Amino acid sequence: MISRILAAQLPAHVGHRVRIAGWVHRQRHLKSVTFVVVRDRSGLAQVVFSEPPEGIGEETVVEVSGLVAARPQAPGGVELVQPELTLLSEPAAAPPFDLYRPAVSATLPTILDNAPVALRHPRLRAQFEITAASVTGFRAALDGLDFTEIHTPKIVGSATESGANVFGIDYFGQSAYLAQSPQFFKQALVGVFERVYEVGPVFRAEPHDTARHLAQYTSLDAELGYITDHREVMAVLRQAIAGMLASVAERAGQAVALLEAEIPEVPDEIPAIHFVDAQELLAKHTAEDPRGEPDLAPAHERWLSEWAMRTYGSEFLYVTGYPMVKRPFYTHPDPARPASSNSFDLLFRGLELVTGGQRLHRYSDYVSALAARGEDVQTYQDYLAVFAHGMPPHGGFAIGLERWTARLLGVSNIRQTTLFPRDLHRLNP
Amino acid sequence: MISRILAAQLPAHVGHRVRIAGWVHRQRHLKSVTFVVVRDRSGLAQVVFSEPPEGIGEETVVEVSGLVAARPQAPGGVELVQPELTLLSEPAAAPPFDLYRPAVSATLPTILDNAPVALRHPRLRAQFEITAASVTGFRAALDGLDFTEIHTPKIVGSATESGANVFGIDYFGQSAYLAQSPQFFKQALVGVFERVYEVGPVFRAEPHDTARHLAQYTSLDAELGYITDHREVMAVLRQAIAGMLASVAERAGQAVALLEAEIPEVPDEIPAIHFVDAQELLAKHTAEDPRGEPDLAPAHERWLSEWAMRTYGSEFLYVTGYPMVKRPFYTHPDPARPASSNSFDLLFRGLELVTGGQRLHRYSDYVSALAARGEDVQTYQDYLAVFAHGMPPHGGFAIGLERWTARLLGVSNIRQTTLFPRDLHRLNP
Repeated sequence: MISRILAAQLPAHVGHRVRIAGWVHRQRHLKSVTFVVVRDRSGLAQVVFSEPPEGIGEETVVEVSGLVAARPQAPGGVELVQPELTLLSEPAAAPPFDLYRPAVSATLPTILDNAPVALRHPRLRAQFEITAASVTGFRAALDGLDFTEIHTPKIVGSATESGANVFGIDYFGQSAYLAQSPQFFKQALVGVFERVYEVGPVFRAEPHDTARHLAQYTSLDAELGYITDHREVMAVLRQAIAGMLASVAERAGQAVALLEAEIPEVPDEIPAIHFVDAQELLAKHTAEDPRGEPDLAPAHERWLSEWAMRTYGSEFLYVTGYPMVKRPFYTHPDPARPASSNSFDLLFRGLELVTGGQRLHRYSDYVSALAARGEDVQTYQDYLAVFAHGMPPHGGFAIGLERWTARLLGVSNIRQTTLFPRDLHRLNP
Repeated sequence: MISRILAAQLPAHVGHRVRIAGWVHRQRHLKSVTFVVVRDRSGLAQVVFSEPPEGIGEETVVEVSGLVAARPQAPGGVELVQPELTLLSEPAAAPPFDLYRPAVSATLPTILDNAPVALRHPRLRAQFEITAASVTGFRAALDGLDFTEIHTPKIVGSATESGANVFGIDYFGQSAYLAQSPQFFKQALVGVFERVYEVGPVFRAEPHDTARHLAQYTSLDAELGYITDHREVMAVLRQAIAGMLASVAERAGQAVALLEAEIPEVPDEIPAIHFVDAQELLAKHTAEDPRGEPDLAPAHERWLSEWAMRTYGSEFLYVTGYPMVKRPFYTHPDPARPASSNSFDLLFRGLELVTGGQRLHRYSDYVSALAARGEDVQTYQDYLAVFAHGMPPHGGFAIGLERWTARLLGVSNIRQTTLFPRDLHRLNP
């Protein structure tokens, strides 16, 4: 039997008999012929039957042998004629909406309830090709910077971050929790490998039912040692983002074109503004005066993004020096003005995309920071032990993968860029 | 300030002043000089002081500027003279064992209790460099075969595989479970992407306290559609294994050398023997007669591995056609002899390393298979829905990452190749 080729490879085989396989995407019965469009992972192929083939409907899995003929008006400029069709597998039910229509006609709940079949729609699938290419680019960028990939526990003995939103587990009769981030482990492993990254699930028992909260998401975490301050972390993040976008362009060009996604340019150096200077700008140029507030409101982030675009032609903007009071206890203060932190947010198209910064690295600093926040040092025993053995100045960041893709594609609900989302109300499929 | 360089880069800088940074690995005080060995992610560097430096001990984090001088008897053939030392961070406690000794002198419990500092020992760290390189090679091999990377839920609504060993979660007041494998999701996504892989954590509430059981491990899962039978899955697994080993050789050569690891050759085609033929061989050539048994005993696997080495010069051997009774319900039978399955085990150096095979793909076959095993079809509702919409013949495999590294390095306890293992008794650090 001749080897299977993909739909996208057909133009290279005009005049030859080939074999393709895929799903029946669409059938059109005309007076004298029937067109069957077959979908495989590479795209669509048109097959021409003189008699309507029997026993096939949308999503029937078929194999077709045929002669490749040039036909300018067909997809890819070719079609398969003189076909022999073999039925591989029949559907037992119809799809919940038409997968062959260019636009997705179903509502989000219908899509999510029927994810295994809904994701076959080329526009929905394309989003996840962009996600996959992004992750490949993230890893390639960090591998090139001498990072080591790690795999850390998702079951932890104590809930060290924002204690309320953790999932509890019965762990052989003991209490345990699902990890909200690999923060502890990635910091500990800076002591071993200096530079580490992890791509893995994190869990938040998020009681809010919003377009941007998930109970599980994929976190792209990086942490590096022997830094001077947060600016080296920002430089690495810039490399990671550039690598992700380069990989999307290189590996998911077809998906980008289908979705008409606008892939941003990453400046060689992403512009940065200090939190205090950002507030001054907002006070001067907008109707509001946010000075003295400990955080930026969404409207402020949007204004600053537009300002960065006008001023630097950049869709990305770093805001640095967030007040210590709004950052986690492990955040390193700015030595020159200790109420400010050596941390940053990366804004992209008006929204916060990534948070990161320099961490404390001295044992005594951790003890003081925990005491100052009224935290029980005993809870953080394992965490503290890491810093008892000599840790270099270090910092890192975390990118939410589903959020990344949503922002890149201008999708407003993060569930749409998650294959099988988990939230307050959704545990299936 | 001059840029930091790594210890391994020193030989290229003889005659120049450079800056290095790292941990004080060891100090040796002689009559007229003190040697301080600094460890960074690339290796070791010897620094020569005329006066013993003050305030440093093992694992102190330091920065050293100095002149690179050739010295054949030093590590790398160079040392740093005329040093200026800056103290970056001091340890608050001594390591639990000497990290500078060539061999690891601590017991496994001491290593695991003190993992963040114990893993700094070059021999322990090296294992995880081999792990990281293996994963990179796995992905590169499958990316090259047009696979798409996926990220699937680790929280699931029903426990579909070996129901007893699941961890329960309180999911916003509902019962939920930690996923024991991405089996359901990777099969569903064959319907979308045809070829998928996932590298992620899986969870087993394993009540056995043995050297090969973990509550969480990293699974390298792959699944592919449009196959004829399990032999195409075996060919892809062969590519994945070859890619992993090539990456280890390329990216972790120093770790391989340090651990004196023996990296196997992968034959272009891994030899395969049918389960029934394997039992015949065992009956003929050993003192036992296992014919009629539904599985192979560990001693049988060892004998077969040795036989494959003698007969084919291969450290790898596929055993195919395991009896259906010992395989999961979604396993595809051999159409020619339905009591046998289209599944396989890959034996490596006497032990089972990977399990895989062809899966059922027709809705009606799933309903029958579940009914035949007395399973409640209702529990498998979401799983069944996948097959209602036309699924191609498909199959896949899963490699346990920690087990892979353990087998490759000849390590008997899988906890040793896990950064922070989780088991019946261990939930920290």
